[in-house]
Order: sequence, then C-alpha cells, then structure tokens
Amino acid sequence: MNTRNVKAFGTEAALKPLTDLTIGRREVEPQDVEIEILYCGICHSDLHSVHNDWGDTIYPVVPGHEIVGRITRVGSGVTKFKVGELAGVGCIVDSCRECEHCHEGEEQFCDKGWTAVFNSPDKKHGGVTYGGFSESIVVDENYVVHIPETLDLPGAAPILCAGITVYSPLKHWGAGPGKQIGIIGIGGLGHMAIKIAKAMGARVTVFTTSQAKADDARHLGADEVVLSTDANQMAACPKQDMILDTVSAKHDVNVYLNLLKVDGSLVIVGLPNEPLEVGAFNVVNGRKSFAGSNIGGIAETQEVIDFCAKHHITADIELINIQDVNEAFERLEKGQVKYRFVIDMASLK
Amino acid sequence: MNTRNVKAFGTEAALKPLTDLTIGRREVEPQDVEIEILYCGICHSDLHSVHNDWGDTIYPVVPGHEIVGRITRVGSGVTKFKVGELAGVGCIVDSCRECEHCHEGEEQFCDKGWTAVFNSPDKKHGGVTYGGFSESIVVDENYVVHIPETLDLPGAAPILCAGITVYSPLKHWGAGPGKQIGIIGIGGLGHMAIKIAKAMGARVTVFTTSQAKADDARHLGADEVVLSTDANQMAACPKQDMILDTVSAKHDVNVYLNLLKVDGSLVIVGLPNEPLEVGAFNVVNGRKSFAGSNIGGIAETQEVIDFCAKHHITADIELINIQDVNEAFERLEKGQVKYRFVIDMASLK
Repeated sequence: MNTRNVKAFGTEAALKPLTDLTIGRREVEPQDVEIEILYCGICHSDLHSVHNDWGDTIYPVVPGHEIVGRITRVGSGVTKFKVGELAGVGCIVDSCRECEHCHEGEEQFCDKGWTAVFNSPDKKHGGVTYGGFSESIVVDENYVVHIPETLDLPGAAPILCAGITVYSPLKHWGAGPGKQIGIIGIGGLGHMAIKIAKAMGARVTVFTTSQAKADDARHLGADEVVLSTDANQMAACPKQDMILDTVSAKHDVNVYLNLLKVDGSLVIVGLPNEPLEVGAFNVVNGRKSFAGSNIGGIAETQEVIDFCAKHHITADIELINIQDVNEAFERLEKGQVKYRFVIDMASLK
Repeated sequence: MNTRNVKAFGTEAALKPLTDLTIGRREVEPQDVEIEILYCGICHSDLHSVHNDWGDTIYPVVPGHEIVGRITRVGSGVTKFKVGELAGVGCIVDSCRECEHCHEGEEQFCDKGWTAVFNSPDKKHGGVTYGGFSESIVVDENYVVHIPETLDLPGAAPILCAGITVYSPLKHWGAGPGKQIGIIGIGGLGHMAIKIAKAMGARVTVFTTSQAKADDARHLGADEVVLSTDANQMAACPKQDMILDTVSAKHDVNVYLNLLKVDGSLVIVGLPNEPLEVGAFNVVNGRKSFAGSNIGGIAETQEVIDFCAKHHITADIELINIQDVNEAFERLEKGQVKYRFVIDMASLK
C-alpha cells in the first residue's frame, strides 16, 4: 500500500507523554477522501487508550475521534464529497457492510466488528489506524459526514462522539415533547445531552452531586436541577421517562431507577470499570430497565450534526494547541474542563 | 363490617409452623363474589411472607395467591359471574381504579399501590387481607377471572401467579415466531415459561446449572438446553432476543447479557435479596437492557388463563393436603418439587 508521511501527535508507550510523531496515511483510493484536520476534540476514551486502561492499546497510538476538517482530495469513485467541503469523522471508519446492522445503517453493531478511527487493526489495508491528532486523514467516503458551514467548527468537533453518544439513546428511548428526561453528570457527554434533550422538546432534569454545577446546568438549558446528595430533593423529584447516565465512575444506580416512571429506562453511556449493583426490586417494580448505549451509526451521526446545526447547538469547549495536550489529559482526568477540550490542529504545523 | 368465620391455615409468628386458624371473611357486598376455594398453589413468596423475609409480614398471616374455586354467592351488582361458575384469584384484589395504570388495566402499577390478596392492609374494608389457604374468599368481581371448565383445576391454580408472572414479560418483550427466547431456571416460574414461550411460537433455549434437568427441560418443550456451567456450550449458544431470568438467588447475569442480540433484554422475575452486578460494557455494547417484570394486570391474567386453556397448558404439580403444607414449605426451600405444590383445599374441611 502506498502511503505518504504526515505529522501526528501520539505516544510510543502508556507512561510516556504524547509528542510529535510521523505516521503514514494511505494514498487516496477510489472511495476515499483526504481531509485536512482543522479541529479534533479530546474524549475521555482517548485518555483510556493512551494509558492502555482497557488493555488493548497498540503502540504507537495516535488518538482523536472527534474530527472536523476540509476535504483536500477525493478518489475517482467519490460521489458525496467535493474538494473544499467541510467534513467530519467520528469513531467508525469501516465495517463489514454486509450484516443486517450495516444494512440498517447501525454500523456500531456490525457483526464482524467495526474499524475504529484509531488503535484498530485495519482489515482492508493492513496495519493499525491512527486518529485525529494529525494533520490529515484518509477515510472511505461512506464513513465521513458533512459538516454545515453554519456550525462553529471547534464546537462542532465533539458532536462526532459526545454528541452522537447522547443523541442516539435520547432518540431511541423517545425523548421529545411531553417526556421527562433526566441527565446524570455535567461533563463532555452530559452537557451535550442537556442541550440536545432540550432541543428535542423534552423537560430536562439534571442530577448533579455539586451545588456549584447547578447554575451551569440551568445555563445549559436544564428545567430542573436536583442535587443527588440531598435526599429531600431526590424524593421530591418528578418521575422520569428516561434517565441518561453519563457518569464514568462507579455509582449507585438504584436511586435513579427509583426515580423512573413505569416502563422507564436508566441508560448508561459512561463505562465505569467496576460493575454496577442493581437491586432486583428496583427493576421488577414498575417494569424498569437498566440499559446501555454506545455511539451511533454513520447515518445517525449525520443526523445529529444536522440536528445541532438546525438548533444552533455546539459543545462548550476550551480550545488548546496540540503542545498542551498532555496537560489537558491531566486536567481531563480531574474533571477540570468546561466541557470539552478541542485541539486547534493548525498548531501541529 | 359484617363478617362470617371461615376455616383457614396460617401462622401467628415467623418461626411457628402453619396450623388451623379461624378468620373472618366479609359478607358479600354488591360488587363481591364469594368463592369456595378448591385448589391453591404454593409460591415461593408465600414462604417469604410466612418467614417475614421482607420484613413486612403482619401476623397472623394466611398465605396463598394462586386460587381457583367455584362461585358460591354473588352480590346484587355483580354482572360478570354467576353462582356455580369457576373463578380464579391471583395476587391483586383491589387497586385505586382511578390512575392511568388502573385505567389501562395494569393494576400491578397502580399509583396508590394495589391491595394484595393476603398480608395487605385493606384500604376499603379495614383490617388485613387473608389469602387462599382457607375454605372461601370474598373478592370484588373486577379482580376475579374466569376459569374455563376445560382446564385441569389443580394445574390451573399456578397460572394465577407463576403463569402471569412469565406470560406478561414474554408478551411485553415480543416472544413469538422467529424469536429466540431464553429461560433461566426450571422451577415453578421457569417450567411455565418454557411451556408458554413455546406455545407463543418462539424458539426456546433453557439455561440450567444441572445436567439432570436437561431432559426435564426438553420434555417441557425446550428446543435447546444449555448447561450454563459449561463455557463451550455457552459460547456455542445462539444469540437470544430476550432471556427471562427466573432465578431467585444471587447469580451472574453478565454471562446472559453477553448472549443477547443487539437490543436484547434480560428480564428478571425472581427477586434475589442481594443486588446483582452488571458490567457497564455488557449493556452498552449492543444497546442491551437488564429489566424486570412483576406479575400482570387483571385483564392480562384473564388472557393468560385463556391462552393456557387454548394451548392445553397447566403447571406440573404435586397435589398435597393442607396438613402437609409445612413439609411442602421445607421442600420448596430446597427446590425439591416438580414444579409447584398445589393444595387440595377439600383437606381443610
């Protein structure tokens, strides 16, 4: 496979800081587009991968899966994109395209497993994929989405992961007018969930352990804020149709199951390492569900981008240079960001 | 309130054996029917109540909530039943009749809490309700179901609790032709679930820890039996649309979450006292749910009775006399029954 060298930022080992790397990107094939990366968001799972928290990291690793940029080249067979257009790439850059889930546009459920934008063996081209902490990327056009020119680009990048991760379950579980939707946690995912659920027309209740975040939650669009450590506030909370749980650390989900209406669902999108304890009575009474959701398919990723453009939703971000990414990782680990770091990739040049 | 004395069998304290008691039954009011109890099933929750395992038992307690009998008197306003007809009473004998759930015929979700057939404060008449271990019972006709004469009566009694408890979630989660339905456990609930899921047209896989029960499961109608302690059998098991978990003891639900298809549900109807540990990855990957279900409403209880009559389904039972109920409780605690004890209430006379 012909490749060309491009600048990237990554690391050779779990305990080493990220630094400049040179990686090979494949030459544009007939279905491919090449994208000059303008902005790339930082997600907690980038941190997990760099640190090999899930034990599956292949080094060197170049993270980044919230990518927006501009098309610089297109392959001979490309029909959906033209040079000069804005484009976005999220978690998924390939899948089998043959299973029922791929046919239904839910590539996140691909029977054979989808190829991730980084740290993933590339079944078609060989080697391992490298993510968005780089100057450019080459991706099959079927796994690339359009970014409207009206969207603020740095704030749009996190829609590619944080946005779709919350939009997909909110839509699947019916968030909309007349529905009570709870959101647990106000971080990268939670703050997008508040904005999106509100734009869907739901009545949004935010649960937080921090009184200091209550005003933030209201500012983001919450109709109600409940301090989850206050038993009186929890007892007075109206019953919810669905609660979206964005917390990544171990926590008590039973108190939230008890806040659901009959047939309600508590849906987790965070990935605590330790198992969560669920009392049988808390799901049996009221036919409740403790469920999960993971990103979304390509079609739905385009849908959330368009939804956010229509409703003028972007992430609240802190724009940084690539040279500050190690410090950003440290702050991210401590939850010290409102609410998403996005890298200005011009700083890599 | 006028009452008449009737014979019953119950206990005055948690550690005392059940013995003869005399209880008062209210005189028939306009909406009431009086039922001579012919057979009453024994459910594990009778045992929990007698032993005060859930801390809410009011003594003396007269258990029994799988009641079939014959109508002996009807109130002046009764329209659905005539003297001499067969009738059944399950867990629910009253509810608020005003909330959305009561209006929808899902009295098990009544906002104000339903009145249980025994050990329940009777909001309308005062006192505490007494269950089916007695010669007769007086119940509002709206909480009584018809029992077809074609059903074997002793085997029909467990449909009132075990049957509805499994029928309701199987129907709610779409068991039917083309669906893979798993059943965990082959006890009072599980053996009914196998028969009902099979009659619904589903392909039924039974999970058991006991090789000895594999033949029983096939005899009950299972298409496949998987020994859950055999990792190879578990790995080879086809993915399930829904798995109904009838196990009442603490167990690992994650191995079953991993056997679900995308959007599949593991639905628990047992009530382990200890919380169950759920790994976030096991629900997040594949958008799966860990859910619960508890009995069903009156309309659906009639539906399962009619379904069982149509499909010639009754419980596999061991018929006992009321004097053997203490021994039966001991054997039930050890799982030594295939698959439900039913009391011949003629023995109480």
